[in-house]
Amino acid sequence: MGKKTTFNISKNDNFSEWYSEILAKAEVTDLRYGVKGFVVIRPWGARIIDKMYRIYESALRATGHDPAIFPAVIPEDNFKREASHVKGFSSELFWLDKKQGEDKLALRPTSETAFYDMYKIWIRSYRDLPMKMYQRANVFRNETKATRPLIRSREFHWIESHDVFASKKDAEMQVQDDIVMTEEVMHKIFGVPFLPMRRPQWDKFPGAEYTIGSDVVMPDGRVIQQPSTHLISQHFTKAFNVKFVDEKEKEKSPWMTCYGPCMSRMLSSVLSLHGDDSGLVLPYTLAPVQVVIVPFDGDGVKSAVDDVRAQLLKEYIDVKVDDSDKRPGEKFFYWEMKGVPFRMEIGEKELAKDEVSLFIRDTKEKISVSIRDLPETIKNLGAEYDERLIARADENFGSSVVDCASKSDIKKALNSGKVARFSFCSCEKEGADCAEFVEKDLQARVMGTRGDVDEKAKGKCLICGKKANAVVYAGKSY
Amino acid sequence: MGKKTTFNISKNDNFSEWYSEILAKAEVTDLRYGVKGFVVIRPWGARIIDKMYRIYESALRATGHDPAIFPAVIPEDNFKREASHVKGFSSELFWLDKKQGEDKLALRPTSETAFYDMYKIWIRSYRDLPMKMYQRANVFRNETKATRPLIRSREFHWIESHDVFASKKDAEMQVQDDIVMTEEVMHKIFGVPFLPMRRPQWDKFPGAEYTIGSDVVMPDGRVIQQPSTHLISQHFTKAFNVKFVDEKEKEKSPWMTCYGPCMSRMLSSVLSLHGDDSGLVLPYTLAPVQVVIVPFDGDGVKSAVDDVRAQLLKEYIDVKVDDSDKRPGEKFFYWEMKGVPFRMEIGEKELAKDEVSLFIRDTKEKISVSIRDLPETIKNLGAEYDERLIARADENFGSSVVDCASKSDIKKALNSGKVARFSFCSCEKEGADCAEFVEKDLQARVMGTRGDVDEKAKGKCLICGKKANAVVYAGKSY
Repeated sequence: MGKKTTFNISKNDNFSEWYSEILAKAEVTDLRYGVKGFVVIRPWGARIIDKMYRIYESALRATGHDPAIFPAVIPEDNFKREASHVKGFSSELFWLDKKQGEDKLALRPTSETAFYDMYKIWIRSYRDLPMKMYQRANVFRNETKATRPLIRSREFHWIESHDVFASKKDAEMQVQDDIVMTEEVMHKIFGVPFLPMRRPQWDKFPGAEYTIGSDVVMPDGRVIQQPSTHLISQHFTKAFNVKFVDEKEKEKSPWMTCYGPCMSRMLSSVLSLHGDDSGLVLPYTLAPVQVVIVPFDGDGVKSAVDDVRAQLLKEYIDVKVDDSDKRPGEKFFYWEMKGVPFRMEIGEKELAKDEVSLFIRDTKEKISVSIRDLPETIKNLGAEYDERLIARADENFGSSVVDCASKSDIKKALNSGKVARFSFCSCEKEGADCAEFVEKDLQARVMGTRGDVDEKAKGKCLICGKKANAVVYAGKSY
Repeated sequence: MGKKTTFNISKNDNFSEWYSEILAKAEVTDLRYGVKGFVVIRPWGARIIDKMYRIYESALRATGHDPAIFPAVIPEDNFKREASHVKGFSSELFWLDKKQGEDKLALRPTSETAFYDMYKIWIRSYRDLPMKMYQRANVFRNETKATRPLIRSREFHWIESHDVFASKKDAEMQVQDDIVMTEEVMHKIFGVPFLPMRRPQWDKFPGAEYTIGSDVVMPDGRVIQQPSTHLISQHFTKAFNVKFVDEKEKEKSPWMTCYGPCMSRMLSSVLSLHGDDSGLVLPYTLAPVQVVIVPFDGDGVKSAVDDVRAQLLKEYIDVKVDDSDKRPGEKFFYWEMKGVPFRMEIGEKELAKDEVSLFIRDTKEKISVSIRDLPETIKNLGAEYDERLIARADENFGSSVVDCASKSDIKKALNSGKVARFSFCSCEKEGADCAEFVEKDLQARVMGTRGDVDEKAKGKCLICGKKANAVVYAGKSY
C-alpha cells in the first residue's frame, strides 16, 4: 500500500537513529506495546533469536550441560539468604502482589537463588559433580536507566547456565570454558568480536568472587556487555547450604559458576555490527530467509522456481519466493533492507543459459551461477559470506582499542569513539575513587582488566598517580 | 550410593500414586521448590519438552505461522476491554506490585489481549491477511483448584497461536486445521489420542464464539483437556478495534482464532498413556536418550562402543553410554524406569558374532542385531516402536467411550472409568441446569458435542426428559 521500503541512513554518522529506524523498518521489534521497557519482538527478530537459541543450546549440550525449566517466580526468602545478592538486585525486582498465606514472590532477575535451592537437595556426593545445567528463560529487571530495544529492556530472553564443581580449580576452568564458548559462538558464528574483561571489585555480579564480562564495541564506540561468566563466592553457596561428601567421606562446600548469554541483547550487537546504510546485513547462519527468489514473467519460470525452491528446502536452506504483485525494484529494496544474504533472480533470460542471477547482500555484487547444484553453491557462498562478515567486524574491532599515556589521551580516545587502555592503580576496592573520576569526569566506565590474558602493569596510574597495579580498559557505555 | 532404582507400581490399580512416584523417580519434575503450583522441570522432563516444542513449532511454521515474542506482562486496561474475557480470567490473574506512574500489570494467563493490541496496528488491509503468528511462552494462572505437576500448575509452558482472517469461513477452516494439527502431532507423533469436543456455551473460552477442546482420557478414566482452539467472537475484535479494508475499500472487522497446545500439560498425557508398571515408556521420537549403551568388560569393547556411539550420533540418534561403576542390573532397571526405548548391550560375546544385543523397552523383548548398519536398524526399530505405542494407546482409547440409554447407565460408565455418551437437551444456555446436575450428582463434566463430526440427537435428554438436541460426552475430570 505504497509503504516506503527504501532505507538510507548513515550508520557511522547517526548510529542511534540508524538503530531505531532499522528495528522498526525491518520489523525486528515494535515499541508500541505501551509498557516501558517491554518490547514486542516481531517474527523477523523472533526467527533470528530462535536460530541463536538453537546454536547456543547445542553448544551447551555438547559441553555437558543439561536443560531444565525453573519457575519464573522466586520467593523473597531465597533472595535474602546472600547479603550482597539481595543488595545488588533489590532495586531491580518486580514483586507480585502478595497472595494471602503465601510467601512474597519476585519475578526472577536471574536464577541463582532458584537453582541453588534445588542443588541443595540434588547434590549429595562427589559423584553428582560436576552438575551442569542451563535454562532458556525470560528474566525481568526493573531498569531505572533509559531502556533501549534489545539493548536494555525490563524483560529479556537469555540462557543461564549454573554449574557446580568439587574444586575451585574446576570452577575456574569452567569460567575460561565459558569465555571459549562466547568466542566459538558469539564471535566465530554470529560475527561479534569482544573483549573478555575481568570486572573491578565494585562492578562484579552481586554474590560473585569475580566476574568476566564480554564487552562488545558498538558502531558508535559505546561498549555493551554481552555474556558474562561468574565464579560464585563460597559464602553464596554456604548461604544456600549446598554441600557434598568427597571421596574421603568429608563434607565440603562446592564451587559454582554461572554464565548468561542473552539472545535478545546479543541480537542488538549482531544487527548493529553487520548492518550498513541500506539496512540489515544478516549472517547467513542466522538469517530467517537465506535466499529470496524473485521470479520474472516468462515461459517455464514458475516450474523452475518451484523446482529450485524444493531443492533448497530439501537441504534445509531457508528460502522464500516473493511472488507478490510489488514491482521488482520494490522487492529488491525490501529484502536488501531486511538483510537477506542472497537474492536469486530467475527469468527466461537466465534459464536460457541454465543460470540464475544472484545478488549478494554484503558486497552488493551480482553474479551468475549455474542452476545445477544450487544447494551446494548456496552453502559454499553462505560460508564465504559469513567469513567476510566476521573479517569485517574483526577489522573494525582491531582499531577500537587505543593505548593511552595520559589523562588527555584517554579523553581523546573516548571522544573519538574508542576504548582506552591505560595504567590504573587497582581494580580492588582502593581503585574505586579513580573509577568514579573516570565515570564523572570522562563519562566512561572502567571495564576492568583482561580476563583471558595477563597484561602486566607498568608505571603509575594515569588517574591518581599512585603505583599502577592494573592495565584497564575504559569505554563509554549505554 | 545405594539409590533404589527399581520401580514397580501398578498403573491401572494406583494411577495417582504411579503418576506422582514416576515423576519423582524418573527425575521429570521436582515439587520441592516450595511455591504452590510452581514445579521445577528437571533435565529428563525438559529434554522431552524441548523435543515436543521443536516438533510443534515445525508444524506451525509449515502451516504458515510465524513466531513472535510478546511481553509476559499485560496492562490492566487491555483485559478490561472485553467484558467476558476479564470476567473469565480475573480470579486467575497474578498482578505485579504497581509501580508509581505506571499502569497496573498482570502476568499473562494467555495473550489475546497482548496480540490484538498490536494487530490493531499491524493490520490495515486484506493484503495483510491472513496473519498467523504464534509464540512459545510461559503463562501464569492462579489456580484455585488443587495443583498437580504438569497437569495443573500455576505456571505452564505452551504455544499460543493467534490467527486473523478476512472472513468467518476462513477462520472456521482454521479451527478445523487446528484440530488436524492436534491429530497430526499429538496423536500421530506423540501417541496421544483424543476426542475433539465442541464445548457447551457455559464452558467456552472467555471471549470466544465457540471452543473446541481436545479431551484425552487418562489411565484412571479421568478426562484432561489438551489443546483447545477457539473462534473468537466479533465483539472481542471490535473491543480491540482491529479492522481491515477489503478489496472494495470497505472497512471490516476481521475474524480471529487462537490455539493453545501446552507442552508441559501434554507431557503429562504422554507419560501417563505410554508408561507401564516398571516406569516410563517414552516414544522413540521424544526420548531424550533413544539408545543407551551398556558396555561389558572385554577385549575390543571400548573401541567398538566408541565406534557405535559415533555412528549413531552422526545420524542424529540420541545415544548415551552408561560406563558408570554401577552393577549391570542396576543400570538395566534405571534406564528401563526412565523409559529409554533401546538398551544396547555390547560385550566380547556379542562382538564375536558381529552383533549387539538390544532390549526393547515396551515389549521387554531382547533381540540380537548385526553391528553393521546400526543407525538404519535403530531408525527402523524406532519407527515400529512408536507405531506400537500409538496402536496400544488407540486400543485403550477405543473402549473408553460407552453409549448410555439411562441415567443409571451414565453413572455406571463414569464409575467404571469410562466416558459416557448420551442424548442431552442442549449445549446452549438452557442446558446449563442439566450440566449442573451431572456435575453435582454424578461428579462429571459435560464435555460437549463432537467438534469434528456431526452426531445427530435422537429421543429425549437423559437428564431432564425434554427433547434432546445434542449428543454429549461426559467424563470425570481433574
